[in-house]
Amino acid sequence: MAEFSIIDRYFKTAASAQVDLGIGDDSAIVSPPVGQQLVICTDTLIAGRHFPLSTSAHAIGWKSVAVNLSDLAAMGATPHSILLALSLPQVDEVWLQDFSQGLFDCCAPYNVHLIGGDTTQSPHLTISVTALGWIPTGQGITRSGAQVGDYVVVSGQVGDAAFALQHLGHPLQQRLDYPSPRCELGQSLRGLASSMIDVSDGLAQDLGHILKASHVGATLWLDQLPIDPALQVLPHAKQWQYALAGGDDYELCFTISKDNYQRLCQLNPVTPFTIIGCIQADLSLKFEYQGEPQFLQLSGYQHFA
Amino acid sequence: MAEFSIIDRYFKTAASAQVDLGIGDDSAIVSPPVGQQLVICTDTLIAGRHFPLSTSAHAIGWKSVAVNLSDLAAMGATPHSILLALSLPQVDEVWLQDFSQGLFDCCAPYNVHLIGGDTTQSPHLTISVTALGWIPTGQGITRSGAQVGDYVVVSGQVGDAAFALQHLGHPLQQRLDYPSPRCELGQSLRGLASSMIDVSDGLAQDLGHILKASHVGATLWLDQLPIDPALQVLPHAKQWQYALAGGDDYELCFTISKDNYQRLCQLNPVTPFTIIGCIQADLSLKFEYQGEPQFLQLSGYQHFA
Repeated sequence: MAEFSIIDRYFKTAASAQVDLGIGDDSAIVSPPVGQQLVICTDTLIAGRHFPLSTSAHAIGWKSVAVNLSDLAAMGATPHSILLALSLPQVDEVWLQDFSQGLFDCCAPYNVHLIGGDTTQSPHLTISVTALGWIPTGQGITRSGAQVGDYVVVSGQVGDAAFALQHLGHPLQQRLDYPSPRCELGQSLRGLASSMIDVSDGLAQDLGHILKASHVGATLWLDQLPIDPALQVLPHAKQWQYALAGGDDYELCFTISKDNYQRLCQLNPVTPFTIIGCIQADLSLKFEYQGEPQFLQLSGYQHFA
Repeated sequence: MAEFSIIDRYFKTAASAQVDLGIGDDSAIVSPPVGQQLVICTDTLIAGRHFPLSTSAHAIGWKSVAVNLSDLAAMGATPHSILLALSLPQVDEVWLQDFSQGLFDCCAPYNVHLIGGDTTQSPHLTISVTALGWIPTGQGITRSGAQVGDYVVVSGQVGDAAFALQHLGHPLQQRLDYPSPRCELGQSLRGLASSMIDVSDGLAQDLGHILKASHVGATLWLDQLPIDPALQVLPHAKQWQYALAGGDDYELCFTISKDNYQRLCQLNPVTPFTIIGCIQADLSLKFEYQGEPQFLQLSGYQHFA
């Protein structure tokens, strides 16, 4: 099957007023909204590395979009569209049908359009998605604005996906296969959060990027970590390993002043969030459990093992 | 080595006034120029499929950018920046140094910035680049505007890369390894060309996309094809196979009215171009040699063999 047939059959969608020129030409064309900046990111999923080989095609399609929308959410951006670079060992029509359905199912709630892509034959299943969004000029939330005294806050729960990866078939596998990009929460944090990152490589490592970029440190309160009941029965060391060093959470970790935290609560966001620590001047990342210092050996996800 | 070290060492570049936020956060941020549309595309190179395994890392880096800038050129866009999704079997510092140099060497003449990316470990070397450019609103050149009576024109030479692929070590391998994206020519065709495509899968197949999108046909004059002297010594059938059905040319094929062709010549573009045929109402693609019809058996590049 030619590339063109694959695109026409599985990936071409109806024209949209938000896209001037979509799939089917050398490039896509999009008109920037007035007063907005373009926010753009790319993330790759490699079969067997970023998802178990047993993962359903539908979940792979979903996740390849979700991990990118999560990066946009971490800037506070409104997602707009994606491009798909899909490299496949062979043309399997059932697989392609399920994959494209998963991809579109993740796009739909956010009104995200597939505007372009490239389909190639490769020995190894590889999916790179580029996601585009918009943010009112100057309102992008970077990693570098954390201030001493800010709360450290995380959305949802952490550690679910890392636990599920080691317990395939457990109900928490839904969290591994179908991460929820926190787009609404990210947008509601414009003008409120002082810094933000999405948690993909483990909370401690990703928070570390904020600390480094902001030239500050933090103390995390381990008894405050939002951990699923299924993990709370495990020994503390094990719980904290999943919650702090597990990958694939796709939650938002942000810093916010106490005043702005009150404003955020008044907005009453749908996505839950939890204060898990505070920013300090001392440049280290410290841990406390019930007020007592804890010394943890953690490592986040390594892209090259 | 962590992903972050690879990015810092090989891919992070100095800040630029054209990029509000570059590599190093969850997403990049770019301010759209007033009165311009965003033009965006993505193309993947798979080792052993889109380039011979013997290709130098420098050439791979160059080509991964060039094939994308070629897609922007085919819209008439001015290139602005790229994102890189690089999937590598292992961290080879010499390879990464050469690859990144090739990538930046292709970016530099066009003032293109690397603004984001993702580096992952994969069993198979795979490079997906997304390229962004700008075009004055409404001036994008699509595949769908060819008019009966227009000339069919192609830039540079066709068939060089396909010939080189079968004759590795021949001087024409430079054309296979280091394609020249025709950005200046593409931009100078704004308001002049009625349709345009970049020739990546073979001239006949790619021109076919213009014909289909424009609901017209064409006659190509085989004696006018711009073919390198090294190929002109071959039998006609062989020459035409390379020139019409070889891949990897990365030339521009466009249609243009006779009046606009005169205007184009007055602009005196640096990139050479050649009239190779004309657009007709009859929906077929015909070939003539010295005024006599020729019936050719051709096939363009198939993405899934």
